[in-house]
Amino acid sequence: MIYLDNSMAARPSERAVSAMMPFFTDHWASPSSPHVMGQQTSGAIKDAYKSLYGLIGANNEDAVIFTSCGAESVNHVFHSVYTDIALPRGKNHFITGKTDEAPALMAMHQLEEQGCIGKCVDVDGRGHVTAELLGDVLSPRAALVSLSWGDGLTGVVQPVEEIAALCEDRGILLHLDATHVLGKLYFAPEEVKADLISFNGPQMHAPQGTGALYIRHGLKISPFIAGGMEQAGLRGGGVNVPGLTALGIAATEALEARDLMCTETARLRDRLEKSVADRIEDMVVFYQNQHRLPHISCMGFRGVANEALLYQLSRKGVMASIGGGSFQQIGLVLMASGVEETLAHSSLSFSLSRETTESEIDKAVEIIVEAVKHLRKFSNAFIN
Amino acid sequence: MIYLDNSMAARPSERAVSAMMPFFTDHWASPSSPHVMGQQTSGAIKDAYKSLYGLIGANNEDAVIFTSCGAESVNHVFHSVYTDIALPRGKNHFITGKTDEAPALMAMHQLEEQGCIGKCVDVDGRGHVTAELLGDVLSPRAALVSLSWGDGLTGVVQPVEEIAALCEDRGILLHLDATHVLGKLYFAPEEVKADLISFNGPQMHAPQGTGALYIRHGLKISPFIAGGMEQAGLRGGGVNVPGLTALGIAATEALEARDLMCTETARLRDRLEKSVADRIEDMVVFYQNQHRLPHISCMGFRGVANEALLYQLSRKGVMASIGGGSFQQIGLVLMASGVEETLAHSSLSFSLSRETTESEIDKAVEIIVEAVKHLRKFSNAFIN
Repeated sequence: MIYLDNSMAARPSERAVSAMMPFFTDHWASPSSPHVMGQQTSGAIKDAYKSLYGLIGANNEDAVIFTSCGAESVNHVFHSVYTDIALPRGKNHFITGKTDEAPALMAMHQLEEQGCIGKCVDVDGRGHVTAELLGDVLSPRAALVSLSWGDGLTGVVQPVEEIAALCEDRGILLHLDATHVLGKLYFAPEEVKADLISFNGPQMHAPQGTGALYIRHGLKISPFIAGGMEQAGLRGGGVNVPGLTALGIAATEALEARDLMCTETARLRDRLEKSVADRIEDMVVFYQNQHRLPHISCMGFRGVANEALLYQLSRKGVMASIGGGSFQQIGLVLMASGVEETLAHSSLSFSLSRETTESEIDKAVEIIVEAVKHLRKFSNAFIN
Repeated sequence: MIYLDNSMAARPSERAVSAMMPFFTDHWASPSSPHVMGQQTSGAIKDAYKSLYGLIGANNEDAVIFTSCGAESVNHVFHSVYTDIALPRGKNHFITGKTDEAPALMAMHQLEEQGCIGKCVDVDGRGHVTAELLGDVLSPRAALVSLSWGDGLTGVVQPVEEIAALCEDRGILLHLDATHVLGKLYFAPEEVKADLISFNGPQMHAPQGTGALYIRHGLKISPFIAGGMEQAGLRGGGVNVPGLTALGIAATEALEARDLMCTETARLRDRLEKSVADRIEDMVVFYQNQHRLPHISCMGFRGVANEALLYQLSRKGVMASIGGGSFQQIGLVLMASGVEETLAHSSLSFSLSRETTESEIDKAVEIIVEAVKHLRKFSNAFIN
């Protein structure tokens, strides 16, 4: 199996999984219990938060809460901005990107049913929500701009500095979903002035059931899961200590592996693209000549239905993605930046991880080339 | 260590923890991915849901969704009844019990800030929300009654059949938090006509980060965590397969152990109460002569501050509870059913599990007796 669907989930780190074990077998009491057994985990909890703060580049005054997934974090943002800002102040416009992921789009849609105005910003030909495009939809009633910092299907990185500057200037909160960016991109936290940053754990080799939400110092937002004073009252419900511990380890490892991602993984991604392009005519590598995430490649193969290709590759042992799940369909994402419909629906996303090897890439190339040629022959025969 | 705080969390089942492992190490791909690796877990997911349906006594037509904790499930209920019923229909009264747990009370409080009316029903001297007491606060604008079926601190079991009948009669949705009841109480699902049932995993020996929500067939409610078509669109975000699998095993084991809980564990609980009562004067066993949960004992020790006693017991290796975390303080819970303040704040809750042994109980008795006597001597000396 050659796994190139790391934007959906990456293999859980062995260290992260091992680190969970003591909290299943020995230190399983609730950290909300004040007795000795409940308090046994306080050191581990502290260490894990420290790693999360480090990954995001948060200050001690900021809040970082552990959540059950990125989707929870995103819904937290929309829900709380609605209750804390839209309702009391009448600023009830919510903005996300046309190519954004399902949690933001669907959370926004839910708010529309409650009387808010939801807007999807267009992207330009590079897949970018530029400050100019964003400026066009902002009004004095805008409460929140929520964007995926980097796209897990296309690798497109949003110009977040200029977006952050615009939001700050207009007094609008900015939320960035950093799921595909953390550990994969260098950035200066002080230049990315987001008010809220969320991420999902599995994309950084943490187990399922993990995520986080960063809340800038000074921003008071309500809990989404109300229910106790856990996590400074920002998320009720007992803390999932094994999950938090694993996410902490995964965060540290993701930071440590960032150099590798930006060099070796990027090289393998380039090798994949070049090798496939050398052997298949009439194909396109999207967003290749712009700043993008180092581990993601999005390619279009004219004349091939991407669902058929995904299925064929899966049968031959190469796992890729056409979106779905929490993603939009890749065809819709590409069309939003001007790719024509047929090509958009002939496109596939491959996402590598720090564990992807050169020999896997070379094998994947063979299988992709063969599958594309096979499907083209088949559809030509069908047409003639 | 003698652990008698099982209402907060019970030791994760070894079988449940073992069952998680393959999903951390081998079958970790997202079940939302349509490729071979993503679909490897579909059998395990199906089995786990089957166990959850079995535990609750749900029909195939009902929905059961896996959540990250009971608090999420409870918040889901309040949030969705608000958006789906209160907003469009103007039925915006929400009712919970005065002795209910923090998630229901706090979720209701959040809705009050959005213009809803929240009401806490009184309990009678037996800790019961009777149909009569409930009827007093119901109005035609009532949308939801949310109650803890059984209380994790006191063991009080609510008369849910009569409450369900009343709610059905008035066209009001009924949500029961069954966290402390499932696997501990025999009930006929067809007689407990709740529309929504939630529970938290750790109280039934499942690991942290697990919970569920049952939604009766025919009741359409919005997702709380929006974000994709996972779990029939009722909860976005990738499914936590190891967590779900563990919860499934824990559910099966909880059903299997119900006989044991209702006989042997109840015997040990009675032994604890009798042995302590035999040796300590001026103490009270609350709710002893009524139908109650088999594994919980709530006792009051006049002249002893329960915080001091909790601390003293913890030092000597006995883990008990005075509430807090997702619970209310035990003193407030007892006072709500008429216990006078000083005694209420001298009270402690002990919760056993199917793993509690007779020798643990006998040791605990020694330690409790000694601690109470010690603290009484100390406070007498202090007064004189």
